[in-house]
Amino acid sequence: MIEQLLEKVRREKPLIHHITNQVTINDCANATLCIGALPVMTHAVDEVEEMAAASGALVLNIGTPTPDQIDAMVAAGKKANQLNIPVILDPVGLGATKLRNDTVKMILDNVHISVIKGNAGEISILAGRGGTVKGVESIGRYDNIETSCHDIAKAYGCTVVVTGAADIIADSNRTLMVKNGDAMMGRVVGTGCMAASMLGCFAAVESDHVQSSAAAMACFGIAGQLAAKRNDIKGPGTFKAALMDELYNLDTASIEQYLNIEEVVTI
Amino acid sequence: MIEQLLEKVRREKPLIHHITNQVTINDCANATLCIGALPVMTHAVDEVEEMAAASGALVLNIGTPTPDQIDAMVAAGKKANQLNIPVILDPVGLGATKLRNDTVKMILDNVHISVIKGNAGEISILAGRGGTVKGVESIGRYDNIETSCHDIAKAYGCTVVVTGAADIIADSNRTLMVKNGDAMMGRVVGTGCMAASMLGCFAAVESDHVQSSAAAMACFGIAGQLAAKRNDIKGPGTFKAALMDELYNLDTASIEQYLNIEEVVTI
Amino acid sequence: MIEQLLEKVRREKPLIHHITNQVTINDCANATLCIGALPVMTHAVDEVEEMAAASGALVLNIGTPTPDQIDAMVAAGKKANQLNIPVILDPVGLGATKLRNDTVKMILDNVHISVIKGNAGEISILAGRGGTVKGVESIGRYDNIETSCHDIAKAYGCTVVVTGAADIIADSNRTLMVKNGDAMMGRVVGTGCMAASMLGCFAAVESDHVQSSAAAMACFGIAGQLAAKRNDIKGPGTFKAALMDELYNLDTASIEQYLNIEEVVTI
Repeated sequence: MIEQLLEKVRREKPLIHHITNQVTINDCANATLCIGALPVMTHAVDEVEEMAAASGALVLNIGTPTPDQIDAMVAAGKKANQLNIPVILDPVGLGATKLRNDTVKMILDNVHISVIKGNAGEISILAGRGGTVKGVESIGRYDNIETSCHDIAKAYGCTVVVTGAADIIADSNRTLMVKNGDAMMGRVVGTGCMAASMLGCFAAVESDHVQSSAAAMACFGIAGQLAAKRNDIKGPGTFKAALMDELYNLDTASIEQYLNIEEVVTI
Repeated sequence: MIEQLLEKVRREKPLIHHITNQVTINDCANATLCIGALPVMTHAVDEVEEMAAASGALVLNIGTPTPDQIDAMVAAGKKANQLNIPVILDPVGLGATKLRNDTVKMILDNVHISVIKGNAGEISILAGRGGTVKGVESIGRYDNIETSCHDIAKAYGCTVVVTGAADIIADSNRTLMVKNGDAMMGRVVGTGCMAASMLGCFAAVESDHVQSSAAAMACFGIAGQLAAKRNDIKGPGTFKAALMDELYNLDTASIEQYLNIEEVVTI
Repeated sequence: MIEQLLEKVRREKPLIHHITNQVTINDCANATLCIGALPVMTHAVDEVEEMAAASGALVLNIGTPTPDQIDAMVAAGKKANQLNIPVILDPVGLGATKLRNDTVKMILDNVHISVIKGNAGEISILAGRGGTVKGVESIGRYDNIETSCHDIAKAYGCTVVVTGAADIIADSNRTLMVKNGDAMMGRVVGTGCMAASMLGCFAAVESDHVQSSAAAMACFGIAGQLAAKRNDIKGPGTFKAALMDELYNLDTASIEQYLNIEEVVTI
């Protein structure tokens, strides 16, 4: 299934419209291109509806929020909703400032989101269970994180993805654990943002967003594992370049060899 | 001739003022520094005239256009025109949205451009022959692209560069084809933007902009070929780093070995 | 001492809030993460006070200044001052335009800066001795640069860092020379900006800012030397990735082997 979805991304080359932060915008564009889709990044309120309408998915990332950009996110999101184009939300730093809390609320009040992806702190805070986010980093343990996912999924009618040592992918009743990835991914700024880009690429070609999200996180994680194993990797700088390489090189054989997904069955 | 122009860039180190997009701004700055010029990137309307006046060339790229930035482009462009400083325009995504169409028109109505560089879709649209641009990517075939170049060159008194498997460089009566470059350059976001930076670097040291543009595209393409041949390249991530290396390392021997330019003679 | 400060950065993982330029924002974030601290980059005036208040240091860099961003710098800086959080200022391109001169004056009039870092041209201009800055590059020789440092240190009650072949670190009466680093660092855009990030990381864990700044510049310089010695380095592109690697890999043995600091004693 995952190999077929990757093949579909590469065949259809969906346009993935990002409205995103200034820090990792280049990495998100390159990761999108490497996996086989077409990136476009623009936040001008005068064109985001038109660009979103031409896209296969819309990725909203609040890493460096400004008033104009937030307006653009809402406008693009509403247009995407009208046209049934999936919208991914990455609520970067939710809980760290009032602006981020207000921004996420404004987006969720105005736009139907297909997939919300965050770290454990952000997702726990969004579920109303509290948490700690230092800058954009999750701090502490979140033992009820699966329940938080299901609550958010029910409240917003969406799929929820929590990135971590194992990634959790859940809707209101299903939970998958993707155990791919490598610790080096946490030593590079923006791998969380790139994961949201991957979620967009796969959501554009598969309407079951638990499936599309599992495929996205598995492919991204396996690329990370392949990069980490390379003997030309000497630290986070060379690893980042290798991660892009391996998204581009990813093939069926590697997916079959490394794929590690479990369905969590609750009795 | 090309070797001499490269030597001149490195000796004079012209300041290349970019008003450009958020996605590839770092890559454009690094490519400019690697080839031997000095990059400066600023879009504050309060300083762009002063910065443009101190520069050897001005590069305008509408990849992530906003109203303030467009105002800055026009102000900087007018100042550059007054001082006879060449202006390069990269109409990124022309045809994809009304904002981009309006922005290009506003710039061309107010600023004399020395070199317009685009992909085939953008150039065909600019020439009034229509075309398809998906996000920022040219879609389809453009068999009349040379005629489009000549039409634009006549209409705006400029040189036109079309990037592709072979790059076309044309003014109203001459056409050169630069057949350097490597397919890997299309797998890295921003090589088109970096090409515009190169056009600025060489336009700053040579007033015949067919010559300067041919030198820029040849040097950039040869650097791409040298990067692609390296055995430490494993995909787009490592290729991108190698491309910067090879812009920096580019020498007369490599140019002589790889240079592949043809003049197209129309009877 | 330096090894202990590096260990403290890695143990405490201070949040380093940057309000910085669009060109090198990703590199600054990655360098901060590689050395062991936590980066956060945001410039929205609605959240910068809250983010600065949660941080261990605030880094202000005027590389691509806009009115909103300058307001955010002043607001964040005042909040940091109230809470005794050190503020680093990188007056990028001071002297190149009136906007940059006015911006630096506005920041210095409103915010107490702990460490000002610039190139020789910027520092000489700030000291009132004049100088030439082309874009963001220092041009010419500055024989009185140590005197300029002491004058600035006295005027603003701060530590002054001048980057160059040897880095100068001075307050009103002490002067240290850090002779680490490699010429390749000058071939990568943003190493000056990353140096300011390093100054922030170390200022967050050590209140003697001559000591913290010496540690920051020594660690950054040694990482550059280790990167330059690697046999997988083929130019500025691969060097940049290696620099990130070596910030991450930096250990006591390398510091002991390469550290080259002198105290300048004036009689």
